[in-house]
Amino acid sequence: MAMKKFINNPDNLVQELLEGFVLANQDKVALEGSNLVVRVNPKPKDKVALVTLGGSGHEPALSGFVGEGMLDISVPGEIFAAPGPPRVVEALKAVARDAGVLFIVLNHAGDVMSANMAVDMAQKEGVTLAKVLTCEDISGDPEDRRGLVGCLLVIKAAGAAAEAGKSLEECAAIAQRMADNMRTLAVAVSGATHPSTGDVIAEIPDEVMVVGMGQHGEAGGGTQQLKTADETAEIMLDALLNDLNVQSGEEIAVLLNGVGATTLMELYLVLRRVKQLLEAKGIGLAHSLVGEYLTVQEMGGFQMCIARVDDELKALLKAPCNSPALTVK
Amino acid sequence: MAMKKFINNPDNLVQELLEGFVLANQDKVALEGSNLVVRVNPKPKDKVALVTLGGSGHEPALSGFVGEGMLDISVPGEIFAAPGPPRVVEALKAVARDAGVLFIVLNHAGDVMSANMAVDMAQKEGVTLAKVLTCEDISGDPEDRRGLVGCLLVIKAAGAAAEAGKSLEECAAIAQRMADNMRTLAVAVSGATHPSTGDVIAEIPDEVMVVGMGQHGEAGGGTQQLKTADETAEIMLDALLNDLNVQSGEEIAVLLNGVGATTLMELYLVLRRVKQLLEAKGIGLAHSLVGEYLTVQEMGGFQMCIARVDDELKALLKAPCNSPALTVK
Repeated sequence: MAMKKFINNPDNLVQELLEGFVLANQDKVALEGSNLVVRVNPKPKDKVALVTLGGSGHEPALSGFVGEGMLDISVPGEIFAAPGPPRVVEALKAVARDAGVLFIVLNHAGDVMSANMAVDMAQKEGVTLAKVLTCEDISGDPEDRRGLVGCLLVIKAAGAAAEAGKSLEECAAIAQRMADNMRTLAVAVSGATHPSTGDVIAEIPDEVMVVGMGQHGEAGGGTQQLKTADETAEIMLDALLNDLNVQSGEEIAVLLNGVGATTLMELYLVLRRVKQLLEAKGIGLAHSLVGEYLTVQEMGGFQMCIARVDDELKALLKAPCNSPALTVK
Repeated sequence: MAMKKFINNPDNLVQELLEGFVLANQDKVALEGSNLVVRVNPKPKDKVALVTLGGSGHEPALSGFVGEGMLDISVPGEIFAAPGPPRVVEALKAVARDAGVLFIVLNHAGDVMSANMAVDMAQKEGVTLAKVLTCEDISGDPEDRRGLVGCLLVIKAAGAAAEAGKSLEECAAIAQRMADNMRTLAVAVSGATHPSTGDVIAEIPDEVMVVGMGQHGEAGGGTQQLKTADETAEIMLDALLNDLNVQSGEEIAVLLNGVGATTLMELYLVLRRVKQLLEAKGIGLAHSLVGEYLTVQEMGGFQMCIARVDDELKALLKAPCNSPALTVK
């Protein structure tokens, strides 16, 4: 697969994409300090601030989640690479406040290492914070689950709670409750290329789909023949419901995240089938989100994320927000 | 290229995607009558209603533009095919009102034929309406320019005007002014497959880009070696500015529409360069929109649309709206 992307000098890729990103969303976000993505209308200092970090190349994630009712700062790294601790510390200090800082970290080795070092350093400098790790991918190592698109639900719920004036303890508890009650599974049908190096991220044979592929092409062992939308929906939903142990009578939110080349059309078919399957099991569909939130360049496939929701989490997911990747009126 | 899509029986594709689409956006849209996509909170009858029609397979277009401050009804056809006149008449009659109906049609042969027949029939039944045709693609036949993603700007501006209580004459004049002052050019780097038939929509050799390719793979004659983001931005912007005859001191809106596999990352690079080029020419960037609004399945490439805007059009583009594909607070 030859790389066919509109880029310039790969060395400037992240700098250029961030400049274009804030230009396209100048009513919501801006660059500050060493390329930290911040809200243009900062939240009052008496409310909890939300921070995250993560590699670039997954647009709109994660900087697209910065805005009213969502994140206060995102620290973007290089392509598919965590930012180093100094910039993370800079972000944590920039939003430091008596109300405290909630730091949401996706479980990937580089992100976690940077985050932990930054937390130590920021706390030594007096920053009040709580950290919540997302690790909801049910494929791969059960002792070290990856954080996938579920981070959006955690950020949405905790962000709405912070906007409503909840304490750091309450916001962290909400984020943790969402994180504990969500599960994600990915499926891939076609590969992608690394935008700086041209390296192939994942090579997937014709007529095959890979259930459980991570967002950087990590294999999950689920290689099988390509199925229909209905069949794929059922395979993935059953695995998720089983892992989360969802019972008849409960309610879940469903997030379908296209990772690049897979169309909204296909995701709508999958959602339709998910709803039918849930109805048959007596499980309620409390909320759904369908779109491209965390992509893997031009890869074909999607992530299905489910989350068990109580009334409070449901209300927080539906609360207003205004970020580049998600706006709710 | 083998087709790798999550679909079921191709005969049910549009029905299923519409069911999933309204399920995913149930706070905004619903299906009514013979699969018309309508607002769940209809606009008061004393305000002008907006209607459009168009083939499916371009999600989120065009039904994704239904909502507050945007369209009142969209009539989706089969994949890449116009809906027949009876359903269009049904839509026009469903929103018929003394205030009148503004009917926005993209210039594609099938859409125009259906639209014209429906207009005749609806007018005979007493529906008050005005029709505006969008035909802003500067590639191809100069006497018969295609309507591409620019329809979004026309719908956004006229939809905001209608929501504000403007008359049919005023809304139609606004839509026509936007249509007359916009131009679009597409570039493609990789092909796609027809989701029902598996037919290849466009075959594009390695290392090549095609400037001027229409949304169904119509060639525009612009086959050339793949360029960088900066070079491509300049080639496309210059062609558009020249065709629209934009002068130093004027202001334009810029819409960058990813058609499928091309990433937001790449579009941000292009927008960044567009802004630099405009500055050098003394042209203002009044507004920008970057995203996937009108797609062509998994095709790689994007459409660049520019529009000369006065203060009224600028305000209408920035006005609040709430639709599946675009929400402005």
